[in-house]
Amino acid sequence: MSRLDSFIRRLKAQRACLDLAARLVRGLDGEILELGLGNGRTYDHLRQLFPDRRIYVCERRVAAHPDCIPPAELLLLGDMRDTLQSAHKVLADQVVLAHFDPGTGDFAASRGLAAELAPLIPPLLRPRGILASEAAIAVDELNPIPLPEGVSPGRYHLYRRVTSRPSA
Amino acid sequence: MSRLDSFIRRLKAQRACLDLAARLVRGLDGEILELGLGNGRTYDHLRQLFPDRRIYVCERRVAAHPDCIPPAELLLLGDMRDTLQSAHKVLADQVVLAHFDPGTGDFAASRGLAAELAPLIPPLLRPRGILASEAAIAVDELNPIPLPEGVSPGRYHLYRRVTSRPSA
Repeated sequence: MSRLDSFIRRLKAQRACLDLAARLVRGLDGEILELGLGNGRTYDHLRQLFPDRRIYVCERRVAAHPDCIPPAELLLLGDMRDTLQSAHKVLADQVVLAHFDPGTGDFAASRGLAAELAPLIPPLLRPRGILASEAAIAVDELNPIPLPEGVSPGRYHLYRRVTSRPSA
Repeated sequence: MSRLDSFIRRLKAQRACLDLAARLVRGLDGEILELGLGNGRTYDHLRQLFPDRRIYVCERRVAAHPDCIPPAELLLLGDMRDTLQSAHKVLADQVVLAHFDPGTGDFAASRGLAAELAPLIPPLLRPRGILASEAAIAVDELNPIPLPEGVSPGRYHLYRRVTSRPSA
């Protein structure tokens, strides 16, 4: 298996997970949240899956293809460790699908960022909202759900927010 | 069709073309030439297809994954417009497969570079040697050959060097 093979496999897993997530949240009202814009490829895919929803995008510095720049009012610019916290004012319990792929290409950095951001994501999700993530995420309130057919465990990840939170 | 869809389709076309090219040059002695290293994904694929051949790599500045750095003696560092010309001393008529994917992500720049480099490639190929290219290439001495099953015309390109050159 070459790096080209495994890259193709990962992108197909990513697409299959997003497509399945779109079906799973069909009956839920709310917003989409893209955690990391990168070159805008998955953002473009989300736009096609969710033509009628707002797609909020977190990114440190926009460097996407010109066709894939989100509207300014939906762009949460800055370090995600900060922007996800401030997004809470607008998006708490409002997100039906969050997608997290830092896409740094650096496995260790990606896992480290995932661990730091993980607790910030569930408070934004609606009950039964979905997180699709390149990195495994281990937090309360998120249960792993079955992957699409053809996607091996660990290649990509899908979680669903539990329906009720323990009261604070 | 999203940018994610078309990216996956392009990578699969690229892989199918390289795999077919590897079968087509099986009976020819000679070297492999990767025109543009990038992150090293297709270089890694070429290494697996050709474990017993030398793979020369042209790159302006190496920024590949650490596992995908070619040996120094096979690295042709610099602008390809220069290095392909100087490579002629070592590689004239020696290359059985050249792969060209500038991977800039910039369609116009990619086409411009392809047009500039195109005349420099055939002199390096053996008779019946193959060029696999992301960009279409129009030069004498290179004939288009059928693409692998499932790859639509124009998505990727395969050419074979003619067997005899007009004498100078």
